[in-house]
This record gives sequence, C-alpha cells and structure tokens, in this order.
Amino acid sequence: MVVKLTEAERKELLQPLLDAGWTMVTGRDAIYKEYLFKNFNEAFGFMTRVALLADKMDHHPEWFNVYNKVQVTLATHDCGGLSERDVKLAKFLEEASSKY
Amino acid sequence: MVVKLTEAERKELLQPLLDAGWTMVTGRDAIYKEYLFKNFNEAFGFMTRVALLADKMDHHPEWFNVYNKVQVTLATHDCGGLSERDVKLAKFLEEASSKY
Repeated sequence: MVVKLTEAERKELLQPLLDAGWTMVTGRDAIYKEYLFKNFNEAFGFMTRVALLADKMDHHPEWFNVYNKVQVTLATHDCGGLSERDVKLAKFLEEASSKY
Repeated sequence: MVVKLTEAERKELLQPLLDAGWTMVTGRDAIYKEYLFKNFNEAFGFMTRVALLADKMDHHPEWFNVYNKVQVTLATHDCGGLSERDVKLAKFLEEASSKY
C-alpha cells in the first residue's frame, strides 16, 4: 500500500528536489517543475524516456508539453499526496533531463 | 508563409472537426479536443505517433496528458490563429485515435 511521505521523509527526500527547482503546488500535496529543452526532439525524447519508466512503475505524471517546454506535476493518486513513488520518478526526471 | 484560414475555409475544413468533437478555445483562435484511451500505453502510443508527424511538419501541439487522457490544443503561432497546418494535424489525430 502506498502511503504519504512522513515529515522526516519530506526533509530528507523532498528537500533535494525543491533545491533542484521543484516547487510545491498550491492547494495540493504535489510537486511541479518546468523543463526547457533545445527543441521538440529533445523535449519529446525526454518524455519518452520518462513514459517508459512511469508505465513500468505504474506511476504516471501529469504533464503539459508545447515545443521545447515540458511542465510536470507529480502526486500519488492512491494516497492523495506525495509518496516515495513521486520522489523516485522526480529523481529520474532530473537524471534524464541532465543529459541534454 | 502561413496564413489564417479564411471564412470559406473554416466552413469547409473546420466544420468537420467541430462535428467530430473539437471545440473552439475561448478567447483564442485555436481548437481543442480531449481524447480518452484505455490506459497510458495507448495514450502515449498515440502521442508518439502524433509527435513524429508534428516534428516532421514543424508544427507542434499544445498538449496535456495524465494516464489515459490526452488534451490537445492546436493553433499556429506564425499566423496567430488557425491555419491549414492545424487542420492537417487535427485530421491525423482523428485518424490515429480511431485505431484504438
């Protein structure tokens, strides 16, 4: 069963993401980041890498794309807030986006 | 040079899309449609087919996805409104989504 991050986990696991440009979503227990790439090829290539992992994890992002921009919101439906799954997926987004 | 659809072209080219569930966006010369699939695999597979054509056309959608849902807005930046490119891309979205 998926559970929300505890306060201690938020300090340990969430803070590095906030330091890396993720922000808390207003009115939701969710995190958000906008990634900018050189062009659509890079943006959709990034999305494709994330999509493969997301579907394997059965944990899917809420995301918006236009051309070189990808805006991502992460939260866990099953627990109504942030869980370890969001941390794992966010870390992968950071890693995948850093290749560009 | 890309130009906005004329009134005559709108009647001929846009109306079939409006009949197929596309709607005009409030306050913008743009069209919108929400597609629902069985799951993320189908939704992202659809997005991937559209991405390949969009990049080939150098005409990119504004789109949002979460799990099985894909919300698409089409407009042409270069002419500040709807052009034949949007009609072409919308027709392909209709065709690609109809395979599911």
